[in-house]
Amino acid sequence: MGADAGCGEETDMQEDMRDRIKVAVDAMGGDHAPREIVKGAVDAVCERKDIQVFLTGQQDAVERELKKYTYPTDQITVVHAEEVIETAEPPVLAIRKKKKSSIVTGLTMVKQKEADAFVSAGSSGAILVGGQVIVGRIKGVERPPLAPLIPTERGVSLLIDCGANVDARPSHLVQFAKMGSIYMEYVAGVKHPKVAIVNIGAEEEKGNALVKETFPLLKECRDINFTGSIEAREIPRGAADVIVCEAFTGNVILKLYEGLSSTLLGVVKKGLMSSLRSKLGAVLIKPALKKTMKSFDASVYGGAPLLGLQGLVVKTHGSSKAVEVKNAIIQCVTFKEQKINEKIKQNLIDGDNKEE
Amino acid sequence: MGADAGCGEETDMQEDMRDRIKVAVDAMGGDHAPREIVKGAVDAVCERKDIQVFLTGQQDAVERELKKYTYPTDQITVVHAEEVIETAEPPVLAIRKKKKSSIVTGLTMVKQKEADAFVSAGSSGAILVGGQVIVGRIKGVERPPLAPLIPTERGVSLLIDCGANVDARPSHLVQFAKMGSIYMEYVAGVKHPKVAIVNIGAEEEKGNALVKETFPLLKECRDINFTGSIEAREIPRGAADVIVCEAFTGNVILKLYEGLSSTLLGVVKKGLMSSLRSKLGAVLIKPALKKTMKSFDASVYGGAPLLGLQGLVVKTHGSSKAVEVKNAIIQCVTFKEQKINEKIKQNLIDGDNKEE
Repeated sequence: MGADAGCGEETDMQEDMRDRIKVAVDAMGGDHAPREIVKGAVDAVCERKDIQVFLTGQQDAVERELKKYTYPTDQITVVHAEEVIETAEPPVLAIRKKKKSSIVTGLTMVKQKEADAFVSAGSSGAILVGGQVIVGRIKGVERPPLAPLIPTERGVSLLIDCGANVDARPSHLVQFAKMGSIYMEYVAGVKHPKVAIVNIGAEEEKGNALVKETFPLLKECRDINFTGSIEAREIPRGAADVIVCEAFTGNVILKLYEGLSSTLLGVVKKGLMSSLRSKLGAVLIKPALKKTMKSFDASVYGGAPLLGLQGLVVKTHGSSKAVEVKNAIIQCVTFKEQKINEKIKQNLIDGDNKEE
Repeated sequence: MGADAGCGEETDMQEDMRDRIKVAVDAMGGDHAPREIVKGAVDAVCERKDIQVFLTGQQDAVERELKKYTYPTDQITVVHAEEVIETAEPPVLAIRKKKKSSIVTGLTMVKQKEADAFVSAGSSGAILVGGQVIVGRIKGVERPPLAPLIPTERGVSLLIDCGANVDARPSHLVQFAKMGSIYMEYVAGVKHPKVAIVNIGAEEEKGNALVKETFPLLKECRDINFTGSIEAREIPRGAADVIVCEAFTGNVILKLYEGLSSTLLGVVKKGLMSSLRSKLGAVLIKPALKKTMKSFDASVYGGAPLLGLQGLVVKTHGSSKAVEVKNAIIQCVTFKEQKINEKIKQNLIDGDNKEE
C-alpha cells in the first residue's frame, strides 16, 4: 500500500500482448490525478496479466509517478497528451478544441480500435460528449446512458441513466432497460435481473407523463424481467437489479445517495463523541463500522459504464483513488470477454423493440 | 407515556372556545389509527390551551380511545364520520363517493370555516384531491404544493413540492418558491430563507427543460432570497432552506431520504453485531446513537402542509404516531397566528409575479 510499492513481478515475455484487453486510462482526470490514477493502473496490471494499459497524459508527470513502482513494464504504455480538460470547461467546446487532451486522446484510441476501453475520472460532460462524438454509438442506440452501480442492502443495483440525457423519451428508457439488463446479467452475473422503473407509487397508473408512457412499453418487452414500478424508498433495499429512470432523476438519486450517506455518517460520528460512554463504545465499534460502511460505499464499485457506444467508456468518480481506478480497469475485461456490445447490438436488432 | 396517561388538567371554563385555533383531525387515517391519532390529539390539548380539536371518524371507536385519557374534555369534540377512505382507493372517486368519510368531513369543516385546519395521516391522494376540490385554492395559486420538512445537518429544510403536481410548469415552481419562502420565514422562523432549485449541476445552463426555464424566473423574484441551483448531494448538508422541485423529483428525494436512512441504520446495526468487541461497543453507544438518529428522523417534524389552500391542510406520514400528530396539530397554531395564507395572498397579488 506504500507509495513505492508494486507487484515486483517480472514480465512474462511469452504472453502475447495482442491477446490482452487494451484499456486506455486518463492519467490526468480526477481530483487525485496523476498519482492515484497511475497507482490504480499499476495495481491492475500487477493483478492481471491479461490487461494492457495505455496511460494518456503528460508524459513527464506520468512517468514520474510510474517510477515509484515495480510492475510488469510491458503492460503499461504512456501515450503523451499535453492538454488537460478541466471539470469546469464547457464540454462540447473542450472536446472540439483540446484535440491533444488526455480525454480526446483516449477516446480516439477506442475509436481507432487501438484500445477496447477508456477509463477516466475527469470531466463527466466531456466524457459523455466525447463518447458520442468521437467513439460513436452502436447502430440503433438512440442515446447512450451512463449507468453506475449503487450499493444496496443486498449487493449492488445498476442505476440507468445518470448521464446527460435529460428530457429523455420513452423509447430511450426502453433501451436503457434492455442495455442495463444485459450488463447486470453478464458483467455483474445476476441471473434474470429484475428491471424496475422509478416511480412515485407502485400502481401502473401513477407517475408523470414519461413514466406513464414508458410503463406499457416495458411490460411488452419479452427479453427483460420487468417487475414494474419502484419507489425511491425501495432502492436501498435492493428491490430491483436495474433501476430505470431518465438522467435528471438518476442524477438526483446518485447524488443524494452520496450526500445522505456521508451526512448520516457524520451525524453518527458526532453523536458518538457526545459522552465519555459513547466515546469508549466508538473505539470498540470502529473496525466493524469501517468494514460495514465500506460495503455501502458507492465508490468501490469501479465506475459507471457509458453503454451503447462502439467500444467501452467508463467514468469513475472525480474523487477516485487507486482502488476505484483498478476496479474500473478490471471491469473492462469482463465487459469485453462477455461481448456486451455484441449482445446489445443483437438485442436491439432482434429484440422485440417496436417502440417509436 | 402509558396508554391511560393524559394531562389530568381541569378545563378552564373561562377560556373562550371561540379564541382557540380549531383543528379538525382525521381519527381514522394512517397505520396506527385511531389509537395514536387520538393520543396525539389528547397530548396536543394537554400542552396547549389555545387549541380546539375536532376528531372526525367513527364515534364509538374514537370515544373508546378517548376514554383512556384524562384531558380538558371541552377541548376535544368527536365529529362522527362513518366511512373510511383506504390508501389504495382511487382518490378522485373516493372523495366523490365517500361523503361521510373522516377525510371529506374534516375538509368540509375547513371549507365551511368550522375549522382552521385539517390534519390527516390518511390517503395522500385523497387529501391532495380533496384539499383542492373541497377546500379550494387561494385565488391566484395555480397548484397547491405539498411541502414536508426534511432533516438536515443544520436543522430542517422545506422540500416543495412532494405532492401530486407532476409535470409542473415553470410558473408553478415560482409560486412554490414564494410560498415555501413565506412558510420557512414565518412558521419555521428562518430569516431570509435561502431558496434553491434542485438541479444536476451548479451552473445556470445545466438542467432539464423545466429547470432551465424556471431558473431565470426565480432570479427575477425580488421577494425571495434565491441562491441558484442545488445538487441533491448538498440537500442533507442543509445548503438551502427551501428546496424547489417538481413533485416527481420531490417524491424521489423524500422517499430516498426515508429509505436510505433506514437501510443505512440497519446496515450499521448489523455490522455492530459482527464481533464480540463491536457488540460491547454497541451497548455503550446505544443511547447516543438513538438521540442522534432521532434528530435526523423526518417523522418528528409534524407533517407536510398543503400550501395555497383557503385554509390549512396538513398531511402527516402514514406511519405517524402520537408525537407526530401532536406536532402537526401544534404547527397549525403557528400557521394561523402568523397569518400565512394572508401573506401568500398578499405576495401573489402584490409580488413581482409576472410569469405566464
